[in-house]
Amino acid sequence: MSTQMQPHTDYDALISDLARAGRSAQRQLAQMPSETKAEALRAAAAALRSASAKVLAENEKDVTAGEANGLSGAMLDRLKLDEGRLDAIAQAIEAVASLPDPVGDVISSSTAPSGLELSRVRIPIGLIGIIYESRPNVTADAASLCLRSGNAVLLRGGSEAVHSNRAIHAAMVQGLTSVGVPEAAVQLMPTQDRAAVGAMLRAQGLIDMIVPRGGKGLVERVQNDARVPVLAHLDGICHTYIHSSADPEMAREIAVNAKMRRTGICGSMETLLLDSEFPASAEVVSALLDKGCELRGDARAQALDPRIKRASDNDWDTEYLDAIASVAVVDGLDAALEHIALHSSGHTDAIVATDEKAAERFLAEVDSAIVMVNASSQFADGGEFGLGAEIGIATGRLHARGPVALEGLTTYKWQVRGTGQTRP
Amino acid sequence: MSTQMQPHTDYDALISDLARAGRSAQRQLAQMPSETKAEALRAAAAALRSASAKVLAENEKDVTAGEANGLSGAMLDRLKLDEGRLDAIAQAIEAVASLPDPVGDVISSSTAPSGLELSRVRIPIGLIGIIYESRPNVTADAASLCLRSGNAVLLRGGSEAVHSNRAIHAAMVQGLTSVGVPEAAVQLMPTQDRAAVGAMLRAQGLIDMIVPRGGKGLVERVQNDARVPVLAHLDGICHTYIHSSADPEMAREIAVNAKMRRTGICGSMETLLLDSEFPASAEVVSALLDKGCELRGDARAQALDPRIKRASDNDWDTEYLDAIASVAVVDGLDAALEHIALHSSGHTDAIVATDEKAAERFLAEVDSAIVMVNASSQFADGGEFGLGAEIGIATGRLHARGPVALEGLTTYKWQVRGTGQTRP
Repeated sequence: MSTQMQPHTDYDALISDLARAGRSAQRQLAQMPSETKAEALRAAAAALRSASAKVLAENEKDVTAGEANGLSGAMLDRLKLDEGRLDAIAQAIEAVASLPDPVGDVISSSTAPSGLELSRVRIPIGLIGIIYESRPNVTADAASLCLRSGNAVLLRGGSEAVHSNRAIHAAMVQGLTSVGVPEAAVQLMPTQDRAAVGAMLRAQGLIDMIVPRGGKGLVERVQNDARVPVLAHLDGICHTYIHSSADPEMAREIAVNAKMRRTGICGSMETLLLDSEFPASAEVVSALLDKGCELRGDARAQALDPRIKRASDNDWDTEYLDAIASVAVVDGLDAALEHIALHSSGHTDAIVATDEKAAERFLAEVDSAIVMVNASSQFADGGEFGLGAEIGIATGRLHARGPVALEGLTTYKWQVRGTGQTRP
Repeated sequence: MSTQMQPHTDYDALISDLARAGRSAQRQLAQMPSETKAEALRAAAAALRSASAKVLAENEKDVTAGEANGLSGAMLDRLKLDEGRLDAIAQAIEAVASLPDPVGDVISSSTAPSGLELSRVRIPIGLIGIIYESRPNVTADAASLCLRSGNAVLLRGGSEAVHSNRAIHAAMVQGLTSVGVPEAAVQLMPTQDRAAVGAMLRAQGLIDMIVPRGGKGLVERVQNDARVPVLAHLDGICHTYIHSSADPEMAREIAVNAKMRRTGICGSMETLLLDSEFPASAEVVSALLDKGCELRGDARAQALDPRIKRASDNDWDTEYLDAIASVAVVDGLDAALEHIALHSSGHTDAIVATDEKAAERFLAEVDSAIVMVNASSQFADGGEFGLGAEIGIATGRLHARGPVALEGLTTYKWQVRGTGQTRP
């Protein structure tokens, strides 16, 4: 970290100040016992509950402004808090408090021929930037996960939720500081100017990692402009391949669940690949169509059901996030692997098969963050994976992949214990 | 990976072609059994031995050109090969062949409440770019490490070594392909134009990681310009702190070894911190000075020996890579920690102490990739750490830190085995 950094604009100076305060707080946080961090999070949850009237009043301002600004019903729903939702946020903070703390875990240890005792020990990453949109619960979720793993956090929420975020942040900080956590451990960006986001993205050496949470437009901008490492996924173009050996009923149930349980999440199936030897393809597409799913197919898929529309070339690379899927008939496992290699976004891809050799080849050869056999891709989720929560799902190849929670918010250092060794 | 990428220049198109070939080869490599990869590396070593006359003749061209171009003696020495050095390169390839292959290792496994069986399995990263300077052995070392861990590699060596690199590369590829490794698994950049390096650095989604190997100028340029993730260290400003409890003889021996064993390596001590309560500081500085080390100190350090020059503010942030060190007297562990937090480059910092509490605080609180107690910082090396070799030493915070070898050249995927689960 250079102290000679020349700010390009006032926002670079602002981010530099915030980051220095955050990094200084993080040095204290890194040495804090696990139980103290847990107690601080429980105090933050309690403070949030005590401040519920204030938080709901501030949230009401955001909702009123959102209605005046013509936010969609879905956006307003994401924004709106009530007693129940606020309690769920507080409970989520408490749940993170009770997750095992990865800091201090020994990843590996050995004794070198020189007699040096080597161990790799988990430590927090440092200062994490979170850039998110209209869901005020991200303020609490992201702050909790960062704090549990000993990281400081700089939060930058959406303008639509600015009053809600400030109220949640203020309540949490009050709780956290009551247990001795430095105030700057959890900071909320003091301005909504988008130029300040640009300054976050180029704050190399000041912010250690940025996690964008929100729609594709946000993630794309962050990935394109960031000089700081980004943990994210842009698309979830998830495939389900029905192998010739698949159990027909299982294939139907998994395909319907993978697409239709919640059509707008990143683990939702976007492309169904039907093996040309699978005997019950018509039943699978029929079940999807009957549930109200629009299907866009290649010529062979269209032959299965007259309700299937013709897919364009773009459809194979489209994340619908809606009750729409593309469907193709493929000749065997190799063709399925080839289609997935060409079109998958590397998020989650699944095979339905009773043939174990086919399943194992799929697990070995599909190069996505998550590969599944005989399960719905909607399980792609930190909670379902037993991580307790998630800061996000990553489709990059380095550091952490798939659902990322506390462990992905840590790195390691080498601790070397000698008895006076000098190197020959 | 977008197939619609618009090349900015011909070099973007070149890198795109090379990367596509490399990635396609890597998909085959990823499924290759560990023993086949080992056999291929042994064949590459044998082919290199068989081609020794050709390689030495090509190397002679580089040495002659280097002499004509006025390369320094040190540069020429790095460049020059002979039978012995070539045999050492072949032996190093064989040593990498016998290292355990991390691909396929299960990092963690668990059963989710839904009954899904989850495992995180190590896989290769993909295509690694290596940008290096005049040492032709890097061609073989880097290619071996990438190949052992199932990665394809795109090598871009220095112009001074171009004939040597081409000959070593050609011999290795001949050996590798004889065992069925695709030719494009190890590619050497076909041009020395520096604009092609620029195209490598911005090849996001095509090259997965870049490792610069060479001097500070090269690493700095790569880190500043790269859009692809970079694994590297820029500086090795390593500290040795002599605690008041240090054994005087051990302190003297470690300080002298840490600086003087080899002054030009990244793990060499650049700053000596002497506790004001340590009784034998004069002996430690005297031993360094007697060995021919120039010392630049603060006023209190200068009082220890008249031969110590006055340090300027810059000295505390300088990597000398020479028989020079800065030396400061500090008042206790906290002052040492503060000095290191301000000036360390995050590479390797060491304490000499018999007080275990002081040592453990140092290990916990110094936030560098490697922290040592009672050992010379010159041990900061993949071989000494039992990794068998190293692709480099990293001071970034994500993915891998400190000496990085085969494990750091892998990532993981989640394999999920179900029995028909749909998500409620």
